[in-house]
This record gives sequence, C-alpha cells and structure tokens, in this order.
Amino acid sequence: MGDTKTEASQPATSSALIAELLGTFLLVLGGVGAALFASDFGTGANGSSLGIGFVGVALAFGLTVVAGAYAFGPVSGGHFNPAVTLGAAAAGRISWSAVPGYIIAQLVGGIAATSVIALIGSSQDGWVAAARDSGFASNGWGEMSPGGFGMIGAIVVEIVFTAIFLFVILGVTDSKRGNPALAGLAIGLTLTLIHLVTIPVDNTSVNPARSLAAAVYGGGDALAQLWVFLVFPIVGGLLAGYLYGPLLGREKR
Amino acid sequence: MGDTKTEASQPATSSALIAELLGTFLLVLGGVGAALFASDFGTGANGSSLGIGFVGVALAFGLTVVAGAYAFGPVSGGHFNPAVTLGAAAAGRISWSAVPGYIIAQLVGGIAATSVIALIGSSQDGWVAAARDSGFASNGWGEMSPGGFGMIGAIVVEIVFTAIFLFVILGVTDSKRGNPALAGLAIGLTLTLIHLVTIPVDNTSVNPARSLAAAVYGGGDALAQLWVFLVFPIVGGLLAGYLYGPLLGREKR
Amino acid sequence: MGDTKTEASQPATSSALIAELLGTFLLVLGGVGAALFASDFGTGANGSSLGIGFVGVALAFGLTVVAGAYAFGPVSGGHFNPAVTLGAAAAGRISWSAVPGYIIAQLVGGIAATSVIALIGSSQDGWVAAARDSGFASNGWGEMSPGGFGMIGAIVVEIVFTAIFLFVILGVTDSKRGNPALAGLAIGLTLTLIHLVTIPVDNTSVNPARSLAAAVYGGGDALAQLWVFLVFPIVGGLLAGYLYGPLLGREKR
Amino acid sequence: MGDTKTEASQPATSSALIAELLGTFLLVLGGVGAALFASDFGTGANGSSLGIGFVGVALAFGLTVVAGAYAFGPVSGGHFNPAVTLGAAAAGRISWSAVPGYIIAQLVGGIAATSVIALIGSSQDGWVAAARDSGFASNGWGEMSPGGFGMIGAIVVEIVFTAIFLFVILGVTDSKRGNPALAGLAIGLTLTLIHLVTIPVDNTSVNPARSLAAAVYGGGDALAQLWVFLVFPIVGGLLAGYLYGPLLGREKR
Repeated sequence: MGDTKTEASQPATSSALIAELLGTFLLVLGGVGAALFASDFGTGANGSSLGIGFVGVALAFGLTVVAGAYAFGPVSGGHFNPAVTLGAAAAGRISWSAVPGYIIAQLVGGIAATSVIALIGSSQDGWVAAARDSGFASNGWGEMSPGGFGMIGAIVVEIVFTAIFLFVILGVTDSKRGNPALAGLAIGLTLTLIHLVTIPVDNTSVNPARSLAAAVYGGGDALAQLWVFLVFPIVGGLLAGYLYGPLLGREKR
Repeated sequence: MGDTKTEASQPATSSALIAELLGTFLLVLGGVGAALFASDFGTGANGSSLGIGFVGVALAFGLTVVAGAYAFGPVSGGHFNPAVTLGAAAAGRISWSAVPGYIIAQLVGGIAATSVIALIGSSQDGWVAAARDSGFASNGWGEMSPGGFGMIGAIVVEIVFTAIFLFVILGVTDSKRGNPALAGLAIGLTLTLIHLVTIPVDNTSVNPARSLAAAVYGGGDALAQLWVFLVFPIVGGLLAGYLYGPLLGREKR
Repeated sequence: MGDTKTEASQPATSSALIAELLGTFLLVLGGVGAALFASDFGTGANGSSLGIGFVGVALAFGLTVVAGAYAFGPVSGGHFNPAVTLGAAAAGRISWSAVPGYIIAQLVGGIAATSVIALIGSSQDGWVAAARDSGFASNGWGEMSPGGFGMIGAIVVEIVFTAIFLFVILGVTDSKRGNPALAGLAIGLTLTLIHLVTIPVDNTSVNPARSLAAAVYGGGDALAQLWVFLVFPIVGGLLAGYLYGPLLGREKR
Repeated sequence: MGDTKTEASQPATSSALIAELLGTFLLVLGGVGAALFASDFGTGANGSSLGIGFVGVALAFGLTVVAGAYAFGPVSGGHFNPAVTLGAAAAGRISWSAVPGYIIAQLVGGIAATSVIALIGSSQDGWVAAARDSGFASNGWGEMSPGGFGMIGAIVVEIVFTAIFLFVILGVTDSKRGNPALAGLAIGLTLTLIHLVTIPVDNTSVNPARSLAAAVYGGGDALAQLWVFLVFPIVGGLLAGYLYGPLLGREKR
C-alpha cells in the first residue's frame, strides 16, 4: 500500500506477485492464526484473562498489514486483498491488466496460510477437528455470526467498512497529498479499527482472500455463506475506488 | 488535523465539507459502533474475556481519527468535531466563516453513522431496542454515568480534556514547530488516552457531534443531558484555542 | 523530549516552565486518572472485563507522553519528570541552571493533576475517601506493592527502568543519530513498556513528580514510602545521563 | 535495526557490542519480565482482569524492540537476537566477522536480564521458586507448551515466523526501498504480532538469546527443550536472509 503509481501502466512483475502472495500469507497466518490459537486461550491460575480476545485479534490483523506494507509494500504496492486491488484499479492507481495476477497470488497466499495453521494445529490431538467444527474463524451471519447478526448486517458491514478501508488507502497513498512514510501504519491501524467494530457482526472480512482461506477449512456452512464475503467487500472496494476522485481527489492543497 | 493553514482565509470548499462529513461519520461509526457491538461481547468457551472493554473502545475512537486524518485530513484539516473546529478558529487556524459549514457537515455525518449502526443492528431481533434502552452509548452523568459520577465530574472532564485535546492538535499542527507527518497519529492516540481515563466518568464526549449522534438514538434521558456535552466541550475547545498563543505559541525554537 | 539542544545554554523561559507544568499535569492526570477511574471498572452484563487493567494504565501513561511531547515538547524539551530533567542535565542536554525551575514546574503540575482527579471524583459520594484508602495509585512496596514485592525489588526497578528510559530518551533525541520526528512516540511507548513490566512490583514510578502527586492524596503509608520514589528514579536517571556518552555517545555512524 | 549498511565491512566496535548487550538486556527484561510479573496478575475487587494477559506480553516484547531500536539501533543496527544477526549476515547486511561478537553480547545481555528479574523477584518470599517451577517463561512444546501443542508445531512456528520477522527487517531497512525512520516501530510491532499469534503454541521464541536466558532459570525441562529454540529460529533467519535477495531484492522502484 505504498505509492502504487509506478505500477499503474505495467503488468505485474514476478517480484510483485511473490510480494502479494507472501503478504497475503502473512495477513491470514497472523489474523486467522491469532483468532484460532489465542483469542480464547482461557484464564490463568490467578484469574486473569490470558486470551487475547477481540482486541488482540484486531491488533493482529492490523499489524500483519503494518509488517507486510513495510516488508513487501514497495515491491507490489502492498494490497494483500482482492477488494483493495480492484478498488485501486477503479481509482486508476494500478493497471487493470495487473489485477488477475494479483488476485490469484492473494488467493494462493491466503490458502497457504490456513494450511500452515492447520499444520501447526495438527501437533495437538483433536485441534484441527475442533477448529473446523468452530468454523475455522470463517466469516458468517445468522448462526455463524459471533454476535447473532443477520445477512443484512453482514452486507452493510462489508460494503461500508471496505469502502472506508479504500478511502484511507487511496488518501494516504495519494501522490499529491498522501503520507507515504506513514501509509503502512495508518492502513494497518485502520484494519485494526475495522475489526474492533465488526468482529461481533460477521467476524470481519473486508478481504475475499481472507474469507476464502478460512472457509476452505471451515467446512459446509462457511462455504455456503462465502459468496457474501467475496461479493460485498468487492462492491465496497469498487464503490470507493470510483467515488474517491469525484468526491475528494480533484482538489489539492 | 493536518496543517490547516491554507484554509485560514478561504470558505469551506465542497470537498472539505464532504471530508468533514465522511470523517465524522467514520469517527462515530467506529467509536460508538465499537462500544455498542463489541465492548461487552462476553466470554469464550475457555473463559477468556472476548469483548473489547473500555481499552478497545478507547482504541477504536482514537483509530478513527488516525484513519480519518490520513484519509480526509489533507482536504479539510480533519476536525470531525465542532469543538475542534471552534478551537481552531479561536486560535486563528481556520476562518470563522468556514465554521458553520464544518459543524453542519459534522453533525450530519455523526447522525448518519448512528443510523448505519442501527441498520446493522436491526439484522438481529431486539438489538436496536436493547441498545436504545442502554442509552445507545450516549454521554451522561448520575444514573447515566458508567461509574456513577455526577454532573460536576462530567463538566470538569469535558472542559479539561477537550482543552488538552486542542493543545495537542494546535501544537502538532503548528506551522513553526509542528510535526505534520505524525499529526494524525499523535492526535488519534490522544483521543485514545482521553477515553482510557474518562469513559467511567461520563462515557467521554469531547465532541458534540459524537454526543448528538448517540443521543438521537439514546432517547429521553440521553437527550435531557445532551446540553452538557454540547456546551462544555466547546468551552474547553475555545479556552484552549484562545490560550494556546499567549501561553505557548509566541516562542519558537 | 524533542531535540533539547537549543535549551542547553539558556535558562528556562516562562513558556518552557508552562509547558513542563502542563505536560506533567497531563501525565499525572492521564496515568493516575486511568488507574483510579478505569483500571478495575468491573465486568459488563455479558461478562466481559470492561476495566482497562494494567494494559490500559500502561497505555495511558505512555500516551500522555506521546500527547505531551507533540504538544509541549518543542517548547520545553518535554521532560515532565525530574529524573529526566536531571539525567538530561547530566548528559549535557540541558543547562543545570534550568533544572530547578523545571522541577518546580513539574511538581506543581503533578499535584494540580491529582487535585483535578479528586475534584472529578468528588462528584460521586465516597469516591475520594475510597481512593485515598486504596493509596490513590501511589507507589509502594511490601503491603503497598500491588503484587507484594519488597523494598529491594522497588529500588532495583526504579534504578534500572529509569536508566533504560533515559537511554531511550537520550538516544532518540541525539542530535547526531536521533530521530526527532519519532521521538515522542518512541519515548511514550517506552513508558508504556515500563509500566507493562513493573506495575505489579511497585506501581511504577520512574518519575518523582508522579509519585509525589499521588502520595499527597494517598495518605500516611504512601508518604512514608515516598522517599524511595524520589531518590531512586533520580539515581537511575543520573546514572544513565553520565554513562550515555562514554558508553554509546562517542561514535557516530 | 536501522540501516546496517555501514557495518557491512567493518568488525563490531565496542560501542556496537555494548549496544547489542544493552538492547538484548532490555528485550528480555521487558518481555520475560512482563510475562512473569504481570501476565496473570489476577482480578481486581470489582472483577476486572488486571493482568496484562498475552496481549500485554506481546506488546511488551514488541515495545522493547521499539525502545531498543531508537536508543541503540543507530550504534549497532539493533539486532538483539542471534537469528537476526545471522539472517542479516546471510543477506549481506552485516559482515560475517562481526557475527560472533554480536551473538556473545546478545547471550550475555539476555542472561543478565533474567538475573535482574530474579533479583527483583527475590524481594518476595517464594517468588523465584514459583517462577522456576512454572518454567520462568521458557519456550517449550508438549507439556511445556502453553496450549499443549507438539514439537512439530513449535518447529514450524519458529521457522516460519522468524523468516517473516527477517523479511520485515530486511525490507524496512533496505537501502533502496526501506523506511529507516519507521523501521524500529515496524519491526517492534511485527514482534508484537508474532507473539499475539504464537504464545499459545510454544511461548514464542524467534530469538535464541531470549530462549537461553529464560531456560537458564527455567530448569531441567526447559533446558532439555532449548535446542529447538536455538536451532529453528536460526534456520528461519538464515532462510529469509538467503531468500530475500532472489525473491524480492533485485527489483527496485
């Protein structure tokens, strides 16, 4: 999510695809891994809550983007998310011809991450089966919503918060008024914010690669609801990508 | 809350008003949304506290400002708060003629945000009614203070902490000795600090737009106490705006 | 805690003294206020832990320094702490002639802050008496140590962690290899770290102004132990101030 | 972990060795200290969880690196970790001839830190014995894994997450496309992320100096498993060091 200007008119390089694959691997490994390994660890002998809860999961998701943006961002722009890639293309920040490669790299990286989570988990008897039964941190609504919210709630959340995410990304990487040094931090902390608010509603997607990666291990119900978390983050991302310029982008200071 | 100097002598542009509306929408959606959806989520099967508590709400409010400052700040100065706009005007950082437009945009953005929260919540039976009964995260004292503090406590908190907020904003965006690259982060983290200390006292306003937006859905008691959270944040903001120069602003390094 | 070089040969200006008073006021109001109002708020109806715990108090103390450094740091160097002022003088960063004024301003600002906390608390029947009985977040050992650690533990903590604090401050504000833009953030987050580790041992001082301000309201036992938290943070600060140059300061990159 | 370029062809200076010793001392004192003193402090009178839990320990480890990077990083490059030093050498960022001195300084600094933790703890009757019985926050698998994960889980975690850590370090300090001002913050927050995910699996090493320092006080079982946390972080670090250039380092923007 650094300044993506120089990619705008060139196809994705192999380094960029590797960067997107590794960055999305990191995002899913860190975010979904934190949710599955650490969010509900339990209490200590003295009664403190040791598990990281939703605050910790929100921090983990955000910090994967901070880490990935500073590690891989300068190579690929640091999207790690098909909705971001599509929104960036809609806003003219990246060439449409680079989009398919980016998205494939992201989907592969995400599934590789949940596979590594399952590999780590398989070192404990029964862990993978239990994680699968709990949905493997998949997104969902109704029975699969952490707080029991319905499909409409999930759809509104995914459109609105993905659009906010893209507004922040497009603003902070704007070549005229952005803040490239701080971009990775600002974008990552925005993803933390989004999770702080919306985990209870639908376990927070705003990223189809994250949703697919979890649902592949989450089983039938997760897969049945997956389409919402493929479609509506993309709707929100495209909406913001097309609206950014007309609403905010034409004036400079 | 970037360098607002260039706005000082010009009326608010339509882009600036859109930026203030979107930024205040984000502030209220994130902060009030986190309070209502996530602060008291409950415990997990292993006994960890999953809800984000006051730490998470404080982080959420602060991170909305980080996100908004880097996304929208360069367009409007990133106030998202009538007390900030009035304090900035008192300090000569923004033209008084831009104030009414800014405040109207902020109030509209805030109410739009609580409306979206209600829309998301309506996807769960009974959620909106329960949220309304609990005050919809409104500010308040006495019976409506989270920790049972009285009106004097709320008034002192709103004056003192809004003044501190403005001192930080005016200092970090000072054209002579500010730190524009870090401004959004420093200001957002200050709002987190303010919430960490004062949520128990009056649920923390320091922002009339946030208070109005919650009270509109919080019902009678919230509306009856609303005046305190319209008046005293503005008192604190103006106080700091007028005192900043005489106390701190004349010397440079 | 910005670059304090320009103060090195000049007496403290009145703006600098006001900045130190306001900054220390903010530090104690935020840190001690968070401890007293919010750390043990209790649990919500769904069972989540709402109080901010030691993580929240640690964040609050650190964020007061972030806020103060960006708001007041350019005016005074942003010490807000007699041990920092003395360590900075020992390292040659500030004139010894400026030290007495700085320390007086810090002590006054700290006591003003606990007075405002008491004023806010007085809006709830019995709050001030209960806070006083619990020590008003004073530092202490033995019976007054949160975790039951003894005087030796407190002394080691205050010397070692204040020295670490000074090494970070002197390093990040070093005119040859410092990082002035990030200094406030790095120093504040270091104070958060110090609290994360040492609140259980002695409630964390590393700052005589913070200790005095709490003990004034904490009553007899707090006052009886206060000397440890006046003396040993200063020992640690001076130690680091004199050692920084010989150990680390002579080489540049 | 600042720009380590200038060290590439010179042996370690005594200042650099002191910086590595002090930085690793800080890392272990802060991280292991937070785990032992504060993670399971217990609940308050009102029922809030006061202990800092795994979120607080993760923050503490990360913030030691933030503090150390800005305090000592410009002197030594700020490794504080043999796996980082070896990975940096593999990537050509530091001379192989500087490696032995760096590693010895790191091991000494780490053991000094757990010794100071024991000294502080000895001010409470029985604390050291209890800490030793609980493993002194050592890394481990099986019976010694916080969450009961096996050796394979620990090995995968150490290789994968140390490699990620090195990719971030090498990326953000890259002379062509790095971000030196933000490097300390990005690297520290990455270490926080790593702990948020992996404490439940093996108590998180990614740093042989941290593992050795804890195991020395953790007793027989901890020492018996120590080899895993010496070998596999180094495997991960070297892997990333050798792969960074071929995968990501050849293209510049």
